[in-house]
Amino acid sequence: MKPVKKILVLNGPNLNLLGLREPGIYGSETLEGINAALLSLAGELSCEVDFLQSNSEGALVDAIQQASGRVDGIIINPAAYTHTSVAIRDAIAAVGLPVIEVHLSNVYKREEFRHKSLIAPVAVGQIAGLGADGYLLALRGMVSYLNRA
Amino acid sequence: MKPVKKILVLNGPNLNLLGLREPGIYGSETLEGINAALLSLAGELSCEVDFLQSNSEGALVDAIQQASGRVDGIIINPAAYTHTSVAIRDAIAAVGLPVIEVHLSNVYKREEFRHKSLIAPVAVGQIAGLGADGYLLALRGMVSYLNRA
Amino acid sequence: MKPVKKILVLNGPNLNLLGLREPGIYGSETLEGINAALLSLAGELSCEVDFLQSNSEGALVDAIQQASGRVDGIIINPAAYTHTSVAIRDAIAAVGLPVIEVHLSNVYKREEFRHKSLIAPVAVGQIAGLGADGYLLALRGMVSYLNRA
Amino acid sequence: MKPVKKILVLNGPNLNLLGLREPGIYGSETLEGINAALLSLAGELSCEVDFLQSNSEGALVDAIQQASGRVDGIIINPAAYTHTSVAIRDAIAAVGLPVIEVHLSNVYKREEFRHKSLIAPVAVGQIAGLGADGYLLALRGMVSYLNRA
Amino acid sequence: MKPVKKILVLNGPNLNLLGLREPGIYGSETLEGINAALLSLAGELSCEVDFLQSNSEGALVDAIQQASGRVDGIIINPAAYTHTSVAIRDAIAAVGLPVIEVHLSNVYKREEFRHKSLIAPVAVGQIAGLGADGYLLALRGMVSYLNRA
Amino acid sequence: MKPVKKILVLNGPNLNLLGLREPGIYGSETLEGINAALLSLAGELSCEVDFLQSNSEGALVDAIQQASGRVDGIIINPAAYTHTSVAIRDAIAAVGLPVIEVHLSNVYKREEFRHKSLIAPVAVGQIAGLGADGYLLALRGMVSYLNRA
Amino acid sequence: MKPVKKILVLNGPNLNLLGLREPGIYGSETLEGINAALLSLAGELSCEVDFLQSNSEGALVDAIQQASGRVDGIIINPAAYTHTSVAIRDAIAAVGLPVIEVHLSNVYKREEFRHKSLIAPVAVGQIAGLGADGYLLALRGMVSYLNRA
Amino acid sequence: MKPVKKILVLNGPNLNLLGLREPGIYGSETLEGINAALLSLAGELSCEVDFLQSNSEGALVDAIQQASGRVDGIIINPAAYTHTSVAIRDAIAAVGLPVIEVHLSNVYKREEFRHKSLIAPVAVGQIAGLGADGYLLALRGMVSYLNRA
Amino acid sequence: MKPVKKILVLNGPNLNLLGLREPGIYGSETLEGINAALLSLAGELSCEVDFLQSNSEGALVDAIQQASGRVDGIIINPAAYTHTSVAIRDAIAAVGLPVIEVHLSNVYKREEFRHKSLIAPVAVGQIAGLGADGYLLALRGMVSYLNRA
Amino acid sequence: MKPVKKILVLNGPNLNLLGLREPGIYGSETLEGINAALLSLAGELSCEVDFLQSNSEGALVDAIQQASGRVDGIIINPAAYTHTSVAIRDAIAAVGLPVIEVHLSNVYKREEFRHKSLIAPVAVGQIAGLGADGYLLALRGMVSYLNRA
Amino acid sequence: MKPVKKILVLNGPNLNLLGLREPGIYGSETLEGINAALLSLAGELSCEVDFLQSNSEGALVDAIQQASGRVDGIIINPAAYTHTSVAIRDAIAAVGLPVIEVHLSNVYKREEFRHKSLIAPVAVGQIAGLGADGYLLALRGMVSYLNRA
Amino acid sequence: MKPVKKILVLNGPNLNLLGLREPGIYGSETLEGINAALLSLAGELSCEVDFLQSNSEGALVDAIQQASGRVDGIIINPAAYTHTSVAIRDAIAAVGLPVIEVHLSNVYKREEFRHKSLIAPVAVGQIAGLGADGYLLALRGMVSYLNRA
Repeated sequence: MKPVKKILVLNGPNLNLLGLREPGIYGSETLEGINAALLSLAGELSCEVDFLQSNSEGALVDAIQQASGRVDGIIINPAAYTHTSVAIRDAIAAVGLPVIEVHLSNVYKREEFRHKSLIAPVAVGQIAGLGADGYLLALRGMVSYLNRA
Repeated sequence: MKPVKKILVLNGPNLNLLGLREPGIYGSETLEGINAALLSLAGELSCEVDFLQSNSEGALVDAIQQASGRVDGIIINPAAYTHTSVAIRDAIAAVGLPVIEVHLSNVYKREEFRHKSLIAPVAVGQIAGLGADGYLLALRGMVSYLNRA
Repeated sequence: MKPVKKILVLNGPNLNLLGLREPGIYGSETLEGINAALLSLAGELSCEVDFLQSNSEGALVDAIQQASGRVDGIIINPAAYTHTSVAIRDAIAAVGLPVIEVHLSNVYKREEFRHKSLIAPVAVGQIAGLGADGYLLALRGMVSYLNRA
Repeated sequence: MKPVKKILVLNGPNLNLLGLREPGIYGSETLEGINAALLSLAGELSCEVDFLQSNSEGALVDAIQQASGRVDGIIINPAAYTHTSVAIRDAIAAVGLPVIEVHLSNVYKREEFRHKSLIAPVAVGQIAGLGADGYLLALRGMVSYLNRA
Repeated sequence: MKPVKKILVLNGPNLNLLGLREPGIYGSETLEGINAALLSLAGELSCEVDFLQSNSEGALVDAIQQASGRVDGIIINPAAYTHTSVAIRDAIAAVGLPVIEVHLSNVYKREEFRHKSLIAPVAVGQIAGLGADGYLLALRGMVSYLNRA
Repeated sequence: MKPVKKILVLNGPNLNLLGLREPGIYGSETLEGINAALLSLAGELSCEVDFLQSNSEGALVDAIQQASGRVDGIIINPAAYTHTSVAIRDAIAAVGLPVIEVHLSNVYKREEFRHKSLIAPVAVGQIAGLGADGYLLALRGMVSYLNRA
Repeated sequence: MKPVKKILVLNGPNLNLLGLREPGIYGSETLEGINAALLSLAGELSCEVDFLQSNSEGALVDAIQQASGRVDGIIINPAAYTHTSVAIRDAIAAVGLPVIEVHLSNVYKREEFRHKSLIAPVAVGQIAGLGADGYLLALRGMVSYLNRA
Repeated sequence: MKPVKKILVLNGPNLNLLGLREPGIYGSETLEGINAALLSLAGELSCEVDFLQSNSEGALVDAIQQASGRVDGIIINPAAYTHTSVAIRDAIAAVGLPVIEVHLSNVYKREEFRHKSLIAPVAVGQIAGLGADGYLLALRGMVSYLNRA
Repeated sequence: MKPVKKILVLNGPNLNLLGLREPGIYGSETLEGINAALLSLAGELSCEVDFLQSNSEGALVDAIQQASGRVDGIIINPAAYTHTSVAIRDAIAAVGLPVIEVHLSNVYKREEFRHKSLIAPVAVGQIAGLGADGYLLALRGMVSYLNRA
Repeated sequence: MKPVKKILVLNGPNLNLLGLREPGIYGSETLEGINAALLSLAGELSCEVDFLQSNSEGALVDAIQQASGRVDGIIINPAAYTHTSVAIRDAIAAVGLPVIEVHLSNVYKREEFRHKSLIAPVAVGQIAGLGADGYLLALRGMVSYLNRA
Repeated sequence: MKPVKKILVLNGPNLNLLGLREPGIYGSETLEGINAALLSLAGELSCEVDFLQSNSEGALVDAIQQASGRVDGIIINPAAYTHTSVAIRDAIAAVGLPVIEVHLSNVYKREEFRHKSLIAPVAVGQIAGLGADGYLLALRGMVSYLNRA
Repeated sequence: MKPVKKILVLNGPNLNLLGLREPGIYGSETLEGINAALLSLAGELSCEVDFLQSNSEGALVDAIQQASGRVDGIIINPAAYTHTSVAIRDAIAAVGLPVIEVHLSNVYKREEFRHKSLIAPVAVGQIAGLGADGYLLALRGMVSYLNRA
């Protein structure tokens, strides 16, 4: 029997404010609500999910390093660090785990500097602009990816 | 009772060769295979899907215009036209239908000119790099989007 | 007696939707309305006008080539192809007919990529931002140009 | 009865030399000739026109400010200041009068630095490359614009 | 009676070294000296000020988030993070508090990369090049801004 | 006894329209109102202020040159000339008087070309985005600067 | 005995006008003349050639796709699409046939935008500036290439 | 007998301060001193010189226009307007007089924006970095140029 | 007798994974191995070395600040922060200690964004591409530099 | 009887290593082999060829100058100097001989800096990517060009 | 008595062809003619001149190095190496002799790449566009410069 | 017994002036002094070193080619050619010998054009800013590299 897949869901800076601030851009769902929906879908897909949010670049790098050997894949919304963090990119490349990058908003409708992702070239793929649904689709996509691998 | 949602799946140039050519980049699944999987998922999600592939920019513009008033949303893989077609962008903006953009490969790992999408700013969202799964996730995402609207 | 001048009015992609879509940008007049007004002005100015709209770049190139030897000048609103079509530019340069470029909206208030016209350097002149009036002024300008030549 | 529309025609630096210098680029008509033709057309269109030419950026800013409340629209050929004057742009934006920008030559066939207009984004529209006719078409366009407003 | 305004003064990386290092660029006053002067001026202006300095981007993001609901405005000298931190920018945009950005030195006389502030577009305003005085002027400006709001 | 400091307040093009035009960008206070407030603050700070506004770049250069030997510092809002006038920059550098640059609006929230100041590198410092308060803070900053020098 | 090599000669937009228009740039030979010379040389080199010219990008993509399995190599003059068509590039990459790119004129003496070929990186090689001779040299080069392979 | 050549010496903004300000950059000679030396050399070379300095771009344009038909050549140090004035460039091109551009300092050792001259492409030649000598060499060069013409 | 030189060896994000991950890029030696070799060489060169690795930008800034007054020089491999951290650069500039920058891989063979170092302009020098040897050479270089100073 | 055409074949730096080094990029044929093939084809085409290879830019300039009046055309593979030598470009323009530029490899598949040729704008045409065949095709092209001239 | 000044006149690649080639750009005077005129003027100015022309960058660097201690100043027309030679620039900076850069043609009217001089920032000044006169003016300028020093 | 390693030390243009010129940038040691120190270290490390300095790009290319098969590695300070010589880069790539690039000064503190090395991508590694020590460290690094290989 195939072992149960374990997936880490990482959220970057300011995503702890989700649903509490700027609903026009990010929607009205809270991070807790999204995590609950992910847990429920994980049950349906028979996988395990774990969660971490941090405003600190270094803490996210630590989390990615520690995920190595413990989880099968990472779903990450790097938020502001998407555009500035070579360190998170290098951590992803170093641990070699499959990563799907999620953005709540359609970053291509926003400021020019948000159009460039340093993470994208080391991720398996990206989902953007689909709001909280993006996380659920990423979980489905990751499970499907891991089952094919 | 809510009417059944109708979704048009548009594929741009060279996607008719899918699975037949360059499997290292685009995977081994054919467009027919993807469409069959979409039909099956559409049944599960109780929506209707229709399909069109063309190598011609003008034909894709025509298709988008004619979709207006007939379908509820469009899933499009504009392929090469992603990076060069203002006409497809203008057609999407003109008809005002929700659009999800799909790319089979992670375009951010490829040539610089593939990193820029003219379509993205007029789409609801994008899914890239998840192979044929991307279409299925886009269908789920579109149905969920339409049900929320 | 001077022969009657014949002028071809070419419209590019999505202009068939004029007046039906995005009136905030393009105004509420339809392409049929504009053509009717052009016909009426043509009568007043004692010239002939012919019309063609296409969403296809190749079809517009064909039309320009076929105009050679049959018309005295071309009024063109290349729409999206303004910014991307070297083929239309080359066709205009090849046939050597005088061309006036028309844009309904003031493209300089819109996205950066709309500020650059590939057609402008091979046209006699441009009229932009004056809505449907732009076509009528272009017809007056063309007739005056042809009479001076 | 609608009050008669008043339109100010502003000409920027070196346009006082029109017809006297570089006819290959600017044509052989003098500014006086153009103004006479405008006066005649104004009679035909039942509007009033007033004229000012200056080589000084500050004087053109002054003229635009003083036009506020006295005229209904401005036709301006900013000449060299098209490409360098934020001050004229700000004056136009500040007084809020409709402005049509005219260029005698097709600036898109000339040096790269003439392709960018600082005035265009605050104008209603532009007419370029049609020689002295451009002013007459601008007057027709302005009257039509004011009657629609 | 109007409640007393509370203002948080945030200082970014290396500002703890103020007055101890590179007095040629940053002046000889210490951060403690500046804070004392701010406290004294706060008494004069009948407002409250609180202080935080950190070398860590994440800690500054945390501080901005926690300020929400507790203070009326933020004065921030983001130092090096001015030019690199989308996370601090997003935090400011998310909490929606009015922010005045202060720089001790005239950043426009220094390296090119210091001329671009990621923070400026989400701040109310900026004060640069006026040394320690900049903080005092920012406090006056903030109090005045809050009283007008 | 220290001699009374004399400060020249220079305002560039279109600032004579302040409060009369585009209050959404520039606020509702008039230049006369600002000058009155400056006079009053000058009394409080025991300094003298003098005022000049001009739409002409040359006149502003003349004023800066003539200030040399007559005043101790200059507060300037170069408005549109901020971004285009090397002549004003050179005048400031030539006379060697301390200059504080003021902008009513937060120029970093506006068009890209307003983000670059030719004046900033030769000024002591800048204050932007704080409306009419910016002038008052600049006066305080200048007096403080002159007293330290 | 080696089978006879089959080579498809593709010509892009406006090349049907060859010899009829702008002989200063493109020479006075017609496309029919070039094709006749190619046929004659093909006889001499014991290979087969087939011809297609189209103004439509989509039709050229179709032709490249259909060439797969039917011909051994393609000689293409993509004309205007050289600089704009990612779709033709992707078609060439997809079918994997060897391609030699021909330009009649020396594109490096013309407008800047003609210096960049999207096709070149997926072609075996390029021949430019040698007029109608370029096609004949390309045929020799292709036959030699195929015989070495 | 050849008529005596007349040469206008134009000086742009801030050059009236020459020798009084920033001798490290511009040298210690005054504009009066330079003009006296030019007068003396003009006697030696049997030509006439006339002088004008202005801080106003418009006044310099006026002077160039009025020089037409009255002088044989212009020596101009456009100072700050070198880098920003299309109007002066256009005036020089319009009057068609030979112009030699002089800069006191070696502009290529200074800020990047001083490396680009809008005037240079319409001048006969330039002399830079040779201080007050530059004017004298320009006068010799102009006389020699006029005698050859 | 000269006091023993003390040197701090700082390693940035993901360097704790050295030898464990991506040996193709970074070699197979671990950070512990490198530190041991440095300790041994320090004995040979009669100096002291201390070590710190952190994934956090703020922690590295703290370490540099605290090194001031305690060590004579710093050897730093800023890893990902090389390209993004103005804060580390400012810390180095502020403490004024001599710094040698080390990179294990030849960054000029990798992605474009790795070619630019924000640290290099404030360092004494750089050693790149020589693997673990780079640290040993840097230690020799630093000791030699300190002995010369 | 037409005189026999003389053609100089110039090869730039490192081409003496051809066939000895990097066969993956440049093929396995030696420069001697290519020259022998050219001699043989020259016999067939009844023309004369002469050869020179040098690693020195100055020596190549000398050779081009000395070719003037002695040969009818030049075939040049400028190798590395293609991208850096204005001197070779100027020599070609000065002597006015027809030049065909050859590159063994498809430079458009290699580093970005190899995509720009300083020589191309002064050459008749280019042949690239066809290996040693390129020289033979260039000789045919040159003879044909000279016979037409 | 002041010792006689010795001045080296260096000419770069292709200037040996002067007067023999492209008189439209470079004039009809030969390098020998220019040198003769310089000798004659040197007599008049009581200085010595020596001459060297080379097509080789290295030879020009050698000449500059060897001039050190033997001549008082250098007049150089670096021709093509103006735009590409850091080596000549470094040689000039190293020997510390005053250098005046001469260009026969007005390089600012020619190709973009000729607008940038690597030599200018290390020269005293430049003279361009004045043909053979430029050398004579440079000699006068150099003698005057040396006498002032 | 391992054969003794032979290493060629190449120095580019103007390095023969080392210690004689601009000691502020390059230090006071002469090239002879550096070579003597290298010889001494070579004895200590039991390897052989040979030396060549040239101001000529072609001579350096020759030297690299001739090193092939005679030496085991090259230490090169390409000086000015670092930034301009594709020919030296191609020579290094062609011979396939390991190369370490040395710069005496920290090029990243100097002009922008010195930040880009054409040599770096084909070298094993670089050492910059450590003065004459850089050569010694490079020799140690090379020997260590060759012993590992």
